Amino acid sequence: QECGQGTVAVRRPAAFCMRRLVCYSLVATVAAMSMGIAAAQSPNGVRTLDPPGAIKAEGTWSLGARAGDFVFVAGMQGVDPATNKLVPDPEARIRQAFLNIRTIAQSEGASLQDCVRLTVYVSDLKRVAPLVDKVQAELWGKPPFPPRTMVEVRRLFDDDLIEIDSVFYVPQKK
Amino acid sequence: QECGQGTVAVRRPAAFCMRRLVCYSLVATVAAMSMGIAAAQSPNGVRTLDPPGAIKAEGTWSLGARAGDFVFVAGMQGVDPATNKLVPDPEARIRQAFLNIRTIAQSEGASLQDCVRLTVYVSDLKRVAPLVDKVQAELWGKPPFPPRTMVEVRRLFDDDLIEIDSVFYVPQKK
Amino acid sequence: QECGQGTVAVRRPAAFCMRRLVCYSLVATVAAMSMGIAAAQSPNGVRTLDPPGAIKAEGTWSLGARAGDFVFVAGMQGVDPATNKLVPDPEARIRQAFLNIRTIAQSEGASLQDCVRLTVYVSDLKRVAPLVDKVQAELWGKPPFPPRTMVEVRRLFDDDLIEIDSVFYVPQKK
Repeated sequence: QECGQGTVAVRRPAAFCMRRLVCYSLVATVAAMSMGIAAAQSPNGVRTLDPPGAIKAEGTWSLGARAGDFVFVAGMQGVDPATNKLVPDPEARIRQAFLNIRTIAQSEGASLQDCVRLTVYVSDLKRVAPLVDKVQAELWGKPPFPPRTMVEVRRLFDDDLIEIDSVFYVPQKK
Repeated sequence: QECGQGTVAVRRPAAFCMRRLVCYSLVATVAAMSMGIAAAQSPNGVRTLDPPGAIKAEGTWSLGARAGDFVFVAGMQGVDPATNKLVPDPEARIRQAFLNIRTIAQSEGASLQDCVRLTVYVSDLKRVAPLVDKVQAELWGKPPFPPRTMVEVRRLFDDDLIEIDSVFYVPQKK
Repeated sequence: QECGQGTVAVRRPAAFCMRRLVCYSLVATVAAMSMGIAAAQSPNGVRTLDPPGAIKAEGTWSLGARAGDFVFVAGMQGVDPATNKLVPDPEARIRQAFLNIRTIAQSEGASLQDCVRLTVYVSDLKRVAPLVDKVQAELWGKPPFPPRTMVEVRRLFDDDLIEIDSVFYVPQKK
């Protein structure tokens, strides 16, 4: 809730008539302005990311941040942005976690190939690691893959099976 | 001990008389020179951080490093810099860990709002995560918050309840 | 296997005669071209690292990546690149993990002193941490050491005792 940064207008379907369109344009402008205040750059130029189509961050964290030529993405779980719930099937959930990462990275112009660092936290290395390999092979399509660290921890949020931390490189337009 | 990098002179109060002042100036100069040798920039320009007011790193690690436009801070626990001991109360200890991070970041001109990445390792996710949320809400004041990953590991140094790894963005003055 | 990126030709000894030399040059050129395709820079300029002398990455990950002025190294274990097996002795294995990191960093012009961030995952903090300190003191020679985070996780690949994630700073030649 605290992190809803005025993007609701963006997700609404197009207006039905001119009058409504004007109204919506105003709303969009105000929303953009308030977003400009709420999600403004930090004193040193860190820009918080909250792209359309991504999951919603609830609590004291953000989905990602652009800083210079790098994009930092928060630890992602396999939450379906449509339902805001974890995807039930383990393999599909792992795929969803990577797709959530990709949505945030792509909003800044980065592809999966621009990932420079993956830290994969899992609940069961022997069971989950092969699924991660399978999903990455499918999503990346071919080598090269990013440098990766994968470890089994004692617990993840929601007693989940995977959470993935990532960093991307995508130089700023100058 | 190994990491005490000649900053002692900086922390001493001003001298009482001219003679002592001259003496101290000499000491300060020598200290700065030896610091220049001990904590010099790396071959490629990494600058090790050891700001006044921060805890002391004992062992084969440093508190932080400046590299280009980024500041990397070591995993911080809730150690009180005045006593060099862990703060007893859990919530106060978590706050102290963030304050220790802030001291290092601020010494390079970064605020908490310039944080681009938090990795929070805890001993008990269900008990500690709500305290982390509370302390962050208080210290940041309002959104946006940085991208964050929080996981429960099996053990931290001193059997502690939290250790926080962080990265900040603060462009170099040119 | 998937990650063998056409570097075999580089490792072969020099040719014996002119004819063979020409032949090998052709092979090398083709290898370089195919490598240029396989390990090409990402759309945004991430360059995957696979230097001679390093261990071979098998699976959906790479040893490291250069992005702008930073080099990101994958989680390294104490695998001997000559045998592709874990070094038996614990202390020697920890040293090998750092040496594997150094090989990758050095291939991009970085020394251990240019490391800006170490994340050390261990299986047994009380037993392994003192060995890490000892090995780092030996390999770095003197302070400053990099910012470090060390935590005990529940399991590492191969039920190993250590895996080390690292980032280096080494500005690009312009």
